[in-house]
Amino acid sequence: MNQKPSIPKGTRDFGPLPMMRRNYIFNTIRSVFQLYGYLPIETPAMENLDTLMGKYGDEGDKLVFKILNSGDFASGIGEEQLQKLVEHPESSPLISRVLASRISEKALRYDLTVPFARFVTQHRDEIVFPFKRFQIQPVWRADRPQKGRYREFYQCDVDVIGSDSLLNEAELFKIIDEVFCKLGLRVIIKINNRKILAGLAEASGLAANVTDFTVTLDKLDKIGIDQVKKEWVSRGISDESIEKLTPIISKAGSNNEKITGLKDFLHASAIGLKGIQELETLFNLIQKFKLTAPVELDLTLARGLNYYTGAIIEVKSLDIQIGSICGGGRYDDLTGIFGMPGVSGVGISFGADRVYDVLDQINAFPAFAQTGTQVLFLNFGLDEVAVCQPLADSIRANGVRCELYPDPVKIKKQLQYADQNHIPVVVMIGETERNISKALVKIMSTGEQKNVDFSELATEILKII
Amino acid sequence: MNQKPSIPKGTRDFGPLPMMRRNYIFNTIRSVFQLYGYLPIETPAMENLDTLMGKYGDEGDKLVFKILNSGDFASGIGEEQLQKLVEHPESSPLISRVLASRISEKALRYDLTVPFARFVTQHRDEIVFPFKRFQIQPVWRADRPQKGRYREFYQCDVDVIGSDSLLNEAELFKIIDEVFCKLGLRVIIKINNRKILAGLAEASGLAANVTDFTVTLDKLDKIGIDQVKKEWVSRGISDESIEKLTPIISKAGSNNEKITGLKDFLHASAIGLKGIQELETLFNLIQKFKLTAPVELDLTLARGLNYYTGAIIEVKSLDIQIGSICGGGRYDDLTGIFGMPGVSGVGISFGADRVYDVLDQINAFPAFAQTGTQVLFLNFGLDEVAVCQPLADSIRANGVRCELYPDPVKIKKQLQYADQNHIPVVVMIGETERNISKALVKIMSTGEQKNVDFSELATEILKII
Repeated sequence: MNQKPSIPKGTRDFGPLPMMRRNYIFNTIRSVFQLYGYLPIETPAMENLDTLMGKYGDEGDKLVFKILNSGDFASGIGEEQLQKLVEHPESSPLISRVLASRISEKALRYDLTVPFARFVTQHRDEIVFPFKRFQIQPVWRADRPQKGRYREFYQCDVDVIGSDSLLNEAELFKIIDEVFCKLGLRVIIKINNRKILAGLAEASGLAANVTDFTVTLDKLDKIGIDQVKKEWVSRGISDESIEKLTPIISKAGSNNEKITGLKDFLHASAIGLKGIQELETLFNLIQKFKLTAPVELDLTLARGLNYYTGAIIEVKSLDIQIGSICGGGRYDDLTGIFGMPGVSGVGISFGADRVYDVLDQINAFPAFAQTGTQVLFLNFGLDEVAVCQPLADSIRANGVRCELYPDPVKIKKQLQYADQNHIPVVVMIGETERNISKALVKIMSTGEQKNVDFSELATEILKII
Repeated sequence: MNQKPSIPKGTRDFGPLPMMRRNYIFNTIRSVFQLYGYLPIETPAMENLDTLMGKYGDEGDKLVFKILNSGDFASGIGEEQLQKLVEHPESSPLISRVLASRISEKALRYDLTVPFARFVTQHRDEIVFPFKRFQIQPVWRADRPQKGRYREFYQCDVDVIGSDSLLNEAELFKIIDEVFCKLGLRVIIKINNRKILAGLAEASGLAANVTDFTVTLDKLDKIGIDQVKKEWVSRGISDESIEKLTPIISKAGSNNEKITGLKDFLHASAIGLKGIQELETLFNLIQKFKLTAPVELDLTLARGLNYYTGAIIEVKSLDIQIGSICGGGRYDDLTGIFGMPGVSGVGISFGADRVYDVLDQINAFPAFAQTGTQVLFLNFGLDEVAVCQPLADSIRANGVRCELYPDPVKIKKQLQYADQNHIPVVVMIGETERNISKALVKIMSTGEQKNVDFSELATEILKII
């Protein structure tokens, strides 16, 4: 094999620099989750096929990576299917679907939500409710790879399940605010409520079809208000309703103005009024937090996910134009699909890849998130190594990442290694330095050099770093 | 679906407690790796099938989890194969093997070594050598699940590649010692050298078949010296050689005594003498480190992996009887399989699951590795919540994990939640406390309670925690 090996399309290798930067993002998110009392869980990469199938719609089902049964999987293929395939090779797409269930019983998780619902149902007797958990793990989707869309990517989910208090929603706003503050990113948090959407549909005479109503509304940004109106008319919404809806869904106006408009339009919709009440309570709670990020009521926000039943949340970057970098909402029946009804929860998910792209584009990764080794001892031969080793240990004892070049090669090559690895400080102890018990310390960024007593080296390094 | 959902056999869910304990192990290992200048990388869970196949032997190949091509995979099955399967259903095992390559192009990684070799070869132009990397990721094997053996488990690999200095081996000993010291585990580090094994085979007249020689030797613990001798005799080793070999391979005797015996037995074996020289250099280097763990030359150590060419390392627990908890060695041609010859490296891998089992059995997980939330504010209603929130924030500002119970339910239930989640401190601010600006702080382990001024709460909590 002489051609360079490669990796499957849509997947990525992460070398040291992107890894350190990604860990900085994950660590920031994780530390905030933990500060608010969320606990870590992990589920297996593989789930039983029947846990995942039918949960993501027909399109989603196709994008689930299935794992071939190990051993003699072909014995599971029935003769009848085979005969059909032999006789009608053109029917292979259909047969692929039928075969898949016979030669595959496991699949890679597609998101963290369904495995979490499965986890809660399966371990309901051990779990203490309300259950505050977070989960940071990769998911896999057989999507067509394109810029910014991968077949393996991490999700960072945080949820409270078993409590319908709106304090949970408020806390998630605070977590969002704290995460992005810590990362140095400017964001806007958009909020909506599924009950308000249901109310709007109801008050517009489309109660039976909230989905149609919201699908149209969701497209406002793309197709513009005129096209939205046209679609609504075609769905049978009256001119009068449309006239009242227009100012409400417009992006202009303060949250209070929007709420006033909603109260008027939804005065006869019980579910709509419930939604407004939730929204007002939430705004009141949030107000006390004095968030850094602005919070905007965006009545076009639907996030396409039908399992939301209350708050819908989405975070957009104010630094650059990019899709949402965090989102989530309230769901009242997540575990219902596994036979455990009536457990309400609320959660959000951070898009680590997009957060990475924003930080990268505005150059906001801090230096410490891009530094591996902090101190390199050059190698002048075994006698000097013997002197360097305890000194390196004393530096490490302070938590400073420190290495010794393994081979006594040319100093130029060793300095080049420090340079290429962006190691900020180099310590040189040659024969001369060894004899006077002083190390020559070089700051790579400035080229500055100074002699430091062995006994003061660890302290001095701490000052420089 | 009313039966409880489950997960594939051999896989595991990790709830909060095992997750915190596992993270304690991973964080300890990771922090030591980083202190010594090793840098993180990650590779995709999926590799191309041809990257993995043929690297783990026939048995290994069978244990690789293959991923079904997405979309219409059946179109890749040739008519000829299908016809055969229809006519000879009994040939399905053979056909499974042939089919697999047509309906699957990707597989889950089986270890971190082959993906690392692939990574180095693929990115050779970007990598700065010597390349010190670590990788902590799960691997998947279609092994028959049994106690302590899982189909998904983490490996923690650390390697230096592109340097043949024995300083690297010495450093790995230091890393092993530091990791297990930090974890509070007593271990013995066993060492051998592939060149010495080759020399022993050569001096015994089995130069052409080092593997046969070592396979027998490797079984010493299991089958005993007499049986080993019998096998050797049957392979044609002379009585004289066996007599000389016996004391050398015996577990008794100091390292120096063993080396003296080796020097005598291997005086005519160039490769054997090279191995002794490497061993002596390494012992000299290690001696300077004053390791806590004893280092024992164990000439029966082979670790079954044919790609080792120099040092072979294995770590055993002295606390409980369990398989090796860390192991590795020097390999001179890891990337050769991908067409990049002559790159020497050395590395070790920590077995996190076994380390977990040892810590668990001797009860050595520290309290901080088993504590999630540290402080719980009880919820007495919205007015009190408004007071609690800024106080909770001031506690979090000190890095203390703190949560507020989301619902104003019965205090008994809230205290039970603290108890079940092992939250050590509970803060109560009811109407009375709110009026006098003092919180009632309860230490859960002792039941002790005291009143603390709001202004001093954060500081007081820090003292307690």
